[in-house]
Amino acid sequence: MLETLKKEVLTANLKLQEHRLVTFTWGNVSGIDRENERIVIKPSGVEYSELTADDLVVLNLDGEIIEGSLKPSSDTPTHLYLYQAFPNIGGIVHTHSHWATSWAQSGRDIPALGTTHADYFDSAIPCTREMYDEEIVKDYEHNTGKVIAETFKNQKYEQVPGVLVNNHGPFCWGTDALNALHNAVVLETVAEMAFHSIMLNQNISPINTVLHEKHFYRKHGANAYYGQS
Amino acid sequence: MLETLKKEVLTANLKLQEHRLVTFTWGNVSGIDRENERIVIKPSGVEYSELTADDLVVLNLDGEIIEGSLKPSSDTPTHLYLYQAFPNIGGIVHTHSHWATSWAQSGRDIPALGTTHADYFDSAIPCTREMYDEEIVKDYEHNTGKVIAETFKNQKYEQVPGVLVNNHGPFCWGTDALNALHNAVVLETVAEMAFHSIMLNQNISPINTVLHEKHFYRKHGANAYYGQS
Amino acid sequence: MLETLKKEVLTANLKLQEHRLVTFTWGNVSGIDRENERIVIKPSGVEYSELTADDLVVLNLDGEIIEGSLKPSSDTPTHLYLYQAFPNIGGIVHTHSHWATSWAQSGRDIPALGTTHADYFDSAIPCTREMYDEEIVKDYEHNTGKVIAETFKNQKYEQVPGVLVNNHGPFCWGTDALNALHNAVVLETVAEMAFHSIMLNQNISPINTVLHEKHFYRKHGANAYYGQS
Amino acid sequence: MLETLKKEVLTANLKLQEHRLVTFTWGNVSGIDRENERIVIKPSGVEYSELTADDLVVLNLDGEIIEGSLKPSSDTPTHLYLYQAFPNIGGIVHTHSHWATSWAQSGRDIPALGTTHADYFDSAIPCTREMYDEEIVKDYEHNTGKVIAETFKNQKYEQVPGVLVNNHGPFCWGTDALNALHNAVVLETVAEMAFHSIMLNQNISPINTVLHEKHFYRKHGANAYYGQS
Repeated sequence: MLETLKKEVLTANLKLQEHRLVTFTWGNVSGIDRENERIVIKPSGVEYSELTADDLVVLNLDGEIIEGSLKPSSDTPTHLYLYQAFPNIGGIVHTHSHWATSWAQSGRDIPALGTTHADYFDSAIPCTREMYDEEIVKDYEHNTGKVIAETFKNQKYEQVPGVLVNNHGPFCWGTDALNALHNAVVLETVAEMAFHSIMLNQNISPINTVLHEKHFYRKHGANAYYGQS
Repeated sequence: MLETLKKEVLTANLKLQEHRLVTFTWGNVSGIDRENERIVIKPSGVEYSELTADDLVVLNLDGEIIEGSLKPSSDTPTHLYLYQAFPNIGGIVHTHSHWATSWAQSGRDIPALGTTHADYFDSAIPCTREMYDEEIVKDYEHNTGKVIAETFKNQKYEQVPGVLVNNHGPFCWGTDALNALHNAVVLETVAEMAFHSIMLNQNISPINTVLHEKHFYRKHGANAYYGQS
Repeated sequence: MLETLKKEVLTANLKLQEHRLVTFTWGNVSGIDRENERIVIKPSGVEYSELTADDLVVLNLDGEIIEGSLKPSSDTPTHLYLYQAFPNIGGIVHTHSHWATSWAQSGRDIPALGTTHADYFDSAIPCTREMYDEEIVKDYEHNTGKVIAETFKNQKYEQVPGVLVNNHGPFCWGTDALNALHNAVVLETVAEMAFHSIMLNQNISPINTVLHEKHFYRKHGANAYYGQS
Repeated sequence: MLETLKKEVLTANLKLQEHRLVTFTWGNVSGIDRENERIVIKPSGVEYSELTADDLVVLNLDGEIIEGSLKPSSDTPTHLYLYQAFPNIGGIVHTHSHWATSWAQSGRDIPALGTTHADYFDSAIPCTREMYDEEIVKDYEHNTGKVIAETFKNQKYEQVPGVLVNNHGPFCWGTDALNALHNAVVLETVAEMAFHSIMLNQNISPINTVLHEKHFYRKHGANAYYGQS
């Protein structure tokens, strides 16, 4: 079963390049096998063009290496935190993709300005609060996960599968690694279009809730009718 | 004859990717055979890379499936409405292309700022009014067509072959599916250039009517002299 | 000799696509053989992917077709006017390239903001005045050339090898068709960078004249020292 | 040993195109062999597609040609100055890449707005002061190096491996030619994202110092833990 998971995590990592979400090695994808309590994640600083399934690192939920000779991504503690805080997710993607990172650097939430956003995210895509110095100095990557979880205290993470980490960049998640990747592409696209819409209209308001819900539930939940059943 | 129509609709759907108008499956093209009262449209949520002519869905003008085993695009009722409201069109394209969607999200018409616009659109490219809650809750896609038609109440749809649906994205049409696709590429290009022109000059005015008409009728109508006859 | 000219004009036309200066058929290149008083120009509305040397149209300086079965570009009278007004040029390029056209639509000259601009253009790249209605209604393309020439009344066209036609787009020229194409690529690049510089600093000033001249004459004239001699 | 250096300098020059940092021949990379006091640099105005290792020019530290039949880059005196002023660098890259040049033309430093910037540059990326007329008229390229060095009077060049030359464009450096190229790609990416962040938030502040240092030292120095050891 881990071979299947490794294959999927590899594919998702390679698709980061195909969708132009990464420069050099600035991104990582992981997936989880919840039954066997194993996480598969990209090794740190390895070029995508050289990455193989064997390079992927297998960890238990405490972050101990179970399999693999390379160091896991330096963002591993963030992934571990999120897998515990968000029990229904199966995959996580982190990148420094241009548009989402530009928003993260601006410290602004991405408001829901259109149906493209509404099709995938049931509210604004939030930007986390800035981290405190003590959270940065010690256990930084762990605390990054903590601040993300804090942002979703009053919000369903299943319905908003991504976040902007303030001053840093996006994390997305999904039912598995490929779904998380899909959401990362959507976030990047939504970020780009929201940027241009705001430049055209600085006093823009988010779309009305009825339209937002219509689109979100056209694609999600029991009454979804988009795509083949 | 439907085989020819299917082939054209397939080509137009595949060209959406070639012209970078779509992310994932966010777009659809249809064509109509008015004599036989048949519409050919993309199935819902199918990847372009896997799409074949056999996957296309054939409908009658009431939207009943005549041929095909897949569900038609969820936007089908909008296409049906437009084919009835605009009796001279032969093809429709809907996408979430970046620049046109950014304008649609801003709620602004695209003013005619240059001859590129004037070559294809005989006025500003209008943005529809926001939809009422009751139009969204029930028969949403049908009402989307209705709001588009309402926007063209006092305007010739043949001379302005595209629209921005407020908060959503562009619909374009044409004499056939490939011509509609052509207009969708033009709209995207015009949207991008108008954005940058406005950033350079916030007090910009549309081009004067004489220049606008000169360019439109250089390419259209009895006295056109662009291209080979 | 015309075969050589045709080959060069064909190559320059095809390079419009390679350098992403054109959408569909929105562009044309011509070249002149001054000794034999012949102009070679792209036919109107022909796709670049299908264009061959035999499709090119040969004209005399009065615009009469000497060779070729297709209609020449609808912009031919502009080319003819410029070849007469600017006796030292050997090639002309017209496109609706995104960045230059965005500036043309804004009605603004492109100020010289950096050494990239100064390397090729010895001043701001001017935007023509708007055309009068009577200039548009009759002999529009001829008058487009006239307005361009008027813009260079007090300026050396050899040292500023391009212009923005107001509300329309760029025309560039050069010692031959390929050099004109080169200048069209430079203009597009300079237009893009000037846009972003101005967004960053609305009160920006052009670079000082000493730096401007240093760069221009590093590449041009008797004391040039850029490139291999 | 010079063959190895030539090969690396050639590779770095060709990668300028791959990373879309150059238009035409507007860029150059050099590398230094400090032990043998030899510099290898791109010849002036040669197309990347035609460039071979044999075309590269070998110079001594006074800029005298030791090997090669072509003229070295016209920016050679800047490279020479920097190799003397910054004794720990092994390679230099100069381009007119779009985003970095747009900033250079605006005269603004690129503030550190996110962790992508902090991962590579330990402060804002400075823009040099404008050059005096006398610095431009005589020994311009030499004085360009001088003004860069002046900008780093109170700043460690090893920790900020790049600069914007006012009105001109970026110079980057690194431990060798490929590392300098890497830093040029980073600078371009950081410049693009900072542009968009500022458009979204004109009152943006740089990230806090603790976060900046955390990221810089996660990748650099004795306690770095990014990548494989």
